[in-house]
Amino acid sequence: MQAALVGVTGYAGMVLYQLLKDHPNIKKINIYDHKLTEPTTLESVAPVFKYEDAEVDPYDPTQIMADNDVVFFATSAGVTSKLSRPYLENHFPVIDLSGDMRLNTESSYEKWYHKPAAPEKYLRQAQYGLAEFESVKDQTYVANPGCYATATLLGLAPLIQNQLVDVKSVIVDAKSGTSGAGKKLSATTHFTETNDNLQVYKPNQHQHIPEIVQELHKWDKAVSSIQFMTTLIPVTRGIMSTIYAHVNDGVTEAQLSQAYHNTYDQKPFVHFTETDLPTIKQVVGTNNCDIGLAYNPDTKVVMIDSVIDNMLKGAAGQAVQNFNQMFDYEQTAGLKLKQMLV
Amino acid sequence: MQAALVGVTGYAGMVLYQLLKDHPNIKKINIYDHKLTEPTTLESVAPVFKYEDAEVDPYDPTQIMADNDVVFFATSAGVTSKLSRPYLENHFPVIDLSGDMRLNTESSYEKWYHKPAAPEKYLRQAQYGLAEFESVKDQTYVANPGCYATATLLGLAPLIQNQLVDVKSVIVDAKSGTSGAGKKLSATTHFTETNDNLQVYKPNQHQHIPEIVQELHKWDKAVSSIQFMTTLIPVTRGIMSTIYAHVNDGVTEAQLSQAYHNTYDQKPFVHFTETDLPTIKQVVGTNNCDIGLAYNPDTKVVMIDSVIDNMLKGAAGQAVQNFNQMFDYEQTAGLKLKQMLV
Amino acid sequence: MQAALVGVTGYAGMVLYQLLKDHPNIKKINIYDHKLTEPTTLESVAPVFKYEDAEVDPYDPTQIMADNDVVFFATSAGVTSKLSRPYLENHFPVIDLSGDMRLNTESSYEKWYHKPAAPEKYLRQAQYGLAEFESVKDQTYVANPGCYATATLLGLAPLIQNQLVDVKSVIVDAKSGTSGAGKKLSATTHFTETNDNLQVYKPNQHQHIPEIVQELHKWDKAVSSIQFMTTLIPVTRGIMSTIYAHVNDGVTEAQLSQAYHNTYDQKPFVHFTETDLPTIKQVVGTNNCDIGLAYNPDTKVVMIDSVIDNMLKGAAGQAVQNFNQMFDYEQTAGLKLKQMLV
Amino acid sequence: MQAALVGVTGYAGMVLYQLLKDHPNIKKINIYDHKLTEPTTLESVAPVFKYEDAEVDPYDPTQIMADNDVVFFATSAGVTSKLSRPYLENHFPVIDLSGDMRLNTESSYEKWYHKPAAPEKYLRQAQYGLAEFESVKDQTYVANPGCYATATLLGLAPLIQNQLVDVKSVIVDAKSGTSGAGKKLSATTHFTETNDNLQVYKPNQHQHIPEIVQELHKWDKAVSSIQFMTTLIPVTRGIMSTIYAHVNDGVTEAQLSQAYHNTYDQKPFVHFTETDLPTIKQVVGTNNCDIGLAYNPDTKVVMIDSVIDNMLKGAAGQAVQNFNQMFDYEQTAGLKLKQMLV
Repeated sequence: MQAALVGVTGYAGMVLYQLLKDHPNIKKINIYDHKLTEPTTLESVAPVFKYEDAEVDPYDPTQIMADNDVVFFATSAGVTSKLSRPYLENHFPVIDLSGDMRLNTESSYEKWYHKPAAPEKYLRQAQYGLAEFESVKDQTYVANPGCYATATLLGLAPLIQNQLVDVKSVIVDAKSGTSGAGKKLSATTHFTETNDNLQVYKPNQHQHIPEIVQELHKWDKAVSSIQFMTTLIPVTRGIMSTIYAHVNDGVTEAQLSQAYHNTYDQKPFVHFTETDLPTIKQVVGTNNCDIGLAYNPDTKVVMIDSVIDNMLKGAAGQAVQNFNQMFDYEQTAGLKLKQMLV
Repeated sequence: MQAALVGVTGYAGMVLYQLLKDHPNIKKINIYDHKLTEPTTLESVAPVFKYEDAEVDPYDPTQIMADNDVVFFATSAGVTSKLSRPYLENHFPVIDLSGDMRLNTESSYEKWYHKPAAPEKYLRQAQYGLAEFESVKDQTYVANPGCYATATLLGLAPLIQNQLVDVKSVIVDAKSGTSGAGKKLSATTHFTETNDNLQVYKPNQHQHIPEIVQELHKWDKAVSSIQFMTTLIPVTRGIMSTIYAHVNDGVTEAQLSQAYHNTYDQKPFVHFTETDLPTIKQVVGTNNCDIGLAYNPDTKVVMIDSVIDNMLKGAAGQAVQNFNQMFDYEQTAGLKLKQMLV
Repeated sequence: MQAALVGVTGYAGMVLYQLLKDHPNIKKINIYDHKLTEPTTLESVAPVFKYEDAEVDPYDPTQIMADNDVVFFATSAGVTSKLSRPYLENHFPVIDLSGDMRLNTESSYEKWYHKPAAPEKYLRQAQYGLAEFESVKDQTYVANPGCYATATLLGLAPLIQNQLVDVKSVIVDAKSGTSGAGKKLSATTHFTETNDNLQVYKPNQHQHIPEIVQELHKWDKAVSSIQFMTTLIPVTRGIMSTIYAHVNDGVTEAQLSQAYHNTYDQKPFVHFTETDLPTIKQVVGTNNCDIGLAYNPDTKVVMIDSVIDNMLKGAAGQAVQNFNQMFDYEQTAGLKLKQMLV
Repeated sequence: MQAALVGVTGYAGMVLYQLLKDHPNIKKINIYDHKLTEPTTLESVAPVFKYEDAEVDPYDPTQIMADNDVVFFATSAGVTSKLSRPYLENHFPVIDLSGDMRLNTESSYEKWYHKPAAPEKYLRQAQYGLAEFESVKDQTYVANPGCYATATLLGLAPLIQNQLVDVKSVIVDAKSGTSGAGKKLSATTHFTETNDNLQVYKPNQHQHIPEIVQELHKWDKAVSSIQFMTTLIPVTRGIMSTIYAHVNDGVTEAQLSQAYHNTYDQKPFVHFTETDLPTIKQVVGTNNCDIGLAYNPDTKVVMIDSVIDNMLKGAAGQAVQNFNQMFDYEQTAGLKLKQMLV
């Protein structure tokens, strides 16, 4: 098995390269960059890989399909859907980490991304790859979920799928480290502004909102919107999605807890920690999503604390998980990662 | 005017000492420590004040009342209510930064603080000092509000007082820097554990919950509980209280905004920044509470972002504000502080 | 007294504006911006001042000299020397926070700043304003020292002036927070790169090296170079300059200590803390330079730990100190600042 | 091969457990705790391992030697030398991460550690395991080096071994993240005190000084002391040892560079990056030591920037490296770790 990686200069692409290199079922990774016209060394485009002896080639879809069995895109939104069209036409296996193919309609993409959408026939060809819930075994194009969406959907799934809460009452207060914003410089992520600070950003406008709603809607047709807010925290890696919902009449705390156990006890990457509320640090370095719960009998509100490493479960890790599903490899192949204990 | 300060070794006491020293209406500050048996230097009990030439005396309430016009308590919960009894009996002016006298009933105090309460006759003698709403002009005992309570109540007041939202739908997701936890060492605030991390703590058990409910109940009798959750952030100073509520039918975004203007435009320390959402950093170093708003027409949820410096507006600053009210000084006396711009 | 401030959008200019506003001897501050063609509000050029009711005017030197008694430049290197020429010609009082006029020769400026220098007659007209050592009482143009230079020179002065150490053995390992690099975005100060990291930068090339050497040379003609290295730390404010030198034969630890006492005991802003080594935090928020000492009898090396707040003693604070000297005001006027205790 | 691990509750022990678990030549790890009297679960003594299904047994040296082929000690100084005596007597293989057996003389240990030393016959039996320089192939007791000592010695080795610098001129300014101080709570590592701060600590008294001197002395008999200072930085993981020395007359920059290449080009874990100065972050998560150099022709001083991950190359990683040497496994077995890229 040879895998193509398009885009290795962004944070997600760099982390994905690390994972693919150690994957037991990948013999060779071929790296491509659509901005190159001549082959060059990996170090020259991504200096962080100064000890890697690898080459990066210009982007040529015909050659890529000839030389590889699958292609991973770690290119940005707006770019990816243009690059990936030949694979869609040829039904060649693609794992796409960008947001370009996650939404089902052109209008939704254009509303939230403020860019031209891919044609709807291609959008419909792509499968949203929330790995614990959407099997991509027989798919050829996987739209890997956004980091916020992953933490939020995994946190909400047992509540919504089992109709344990009032869907209109759901409130998501999500917090992310700065690596989610990528390498692009901005005043918001300038150290002097970010350190010792909290900044609420993109209120009601985050582009992960529509993919959350689209997926929730599959689970409960009553969901048509979600209250979802994002805060930037002075942390490099990690997302905490804090979710609140009013519990339906008659639902007990034990039933809430049981729903999480039923949903996740057989899933290798999702841990339900009950009332032991997880911290961001306990998942950094892993592909895990840890989920804890606190029920308030006074307000009948359940709080769900769902944490992931945005670079792994929120990006490159889930991409490998989807790859494993697509090719029927062991679920945890290439993903037996060490938690950053200290 | 001479002011007594009891407790100068904790963070709030140290910051309060700085403020009182610069207060234009205080001629002399006399410092006391209930653990001392002999007078000593300020530096010996609080090494941070190495350039201050001040003395600390043993605690003697009779002497304190003889030598001072007011006493500030910056001692901890459980201790303060024992120390402050003589002043209550003598109707001598007290500003109490602890939580000991904030709640009106013994049972509530004992439920949330897990310590013996002061007798109810004393609890009723104390006035909860949310400075923008509770005049303490003719009071002798002010229970200065908790830091979380201050940010949350100031954020909620216009919504609740004007019945703009469904009180049962209110969700508060509050975040605090570590200085709120004080000087006491704990695993939670050990740098190696706190840095690069978020930790949800005391779920549904934070001792500021009952004072929030008690005050909200004054504004709207329908409030009997609140969904309030606290997260520790890797920041030294600052609180952000993020508040969500479902807006009542027929209420417009303009009405929400107008309510904040009406409530706060004449208040020197509270700034309503409309949809320009405030960050923690913009209030650090000041006695301000900055409040922004984001209304979501899809979900009919309003999000309120209320930020304070927990050491100032959340503790020592509001104490001085209450002191100014009690003695009818200019509201901003001693509180014209510089924002930590950088 | 009316003071002109040219440049209020950078960090140093913003902090300087705060200080000047509270200065007891300044009646009015007039703000100018050389990029403006029409007057505008302060908030529009520096949004951080959203509660200030102040105007910013286009830059017009004739008008500035007509309306003001002194002008402060907080504009960048390369720009300032062009703007400040009319004042030099008219011997109008200037406090210049940039590096443009600190060096005495054109060749040195061009070597270290990589920009065209001001003509040497102007360079010689400017007085380097290391406030504890260079009186600017009868000067009209003060070149306010660089932040690193201030911490380092104050740390070294007693050793060099009293010939206590081998000047060739001096090593300075200086560390700075990110605010020293200003508002300009760069990969080095991108939160994701800066957090959890240390970065040595500009090795042997920092532009503060020549002003350090120039000043040391005044104190001891034997000094013609200095080993000075800079490391960026994940901190917003503060510089620690760690200085090492081999003590001359026969010099005792007591003599070292005495030299610091003799030099600084009468200086209000410099504190010699003996072997109680200062931390960055103990000076943040103040115009202080705290200096501690550790002598190693095994190696005969003395280590000096000199800390300042780079925004205050390292920039705006020392500018006010120089202003006080120039106009013969009380040394601490406008500089009685509160330490950021917590 | 079965390996015993004594001490899994400290940071180094936890990280070592992770490494040993993935080591290709270890079939089983048996964990022991000298404070236990009954077997218990790993999670109960180290809650961070909540998903590990492992047991911890009471400490019994006879049983340990019967059941294992090697024992790793990750217990603290003062404790380890008492626990490890039976293995010394039996010449049973030990890798000791503590400082107890690193120094050759009782007097030196007692001077720097302020505790009773192990008898000198045992001290002499232990081999100091600076893995790049001291082969432990035929040793049974390895004293794994301290974190600061590792970064400093690897940085200094080419200079000292090749007599390129004046040994008396060497100055080491070392900086460490807080994890080096372990789990023990202290005011110095309380988040509120550590964040936004730099703290010089243990001036001229750090217990790693004597092991640095002892090893340097092996390389150059002229070395009898070292100027070494430590600063605590607001970072969790990582050490930067910044080393300065006056270059001997006639030595060129090219010779300095060549010495590093000669020494390290064949060593898998040490990278000489020439004038591209390494940052802490580039080694976090790995067993690497990255070393860069900046030569100053004006001062004839060479600056060496040597960085390691204190938990890995500075503790558990080097322990595994020594284990590999002791049992003649591949040098990088169990140590092909992923850099924390983001």
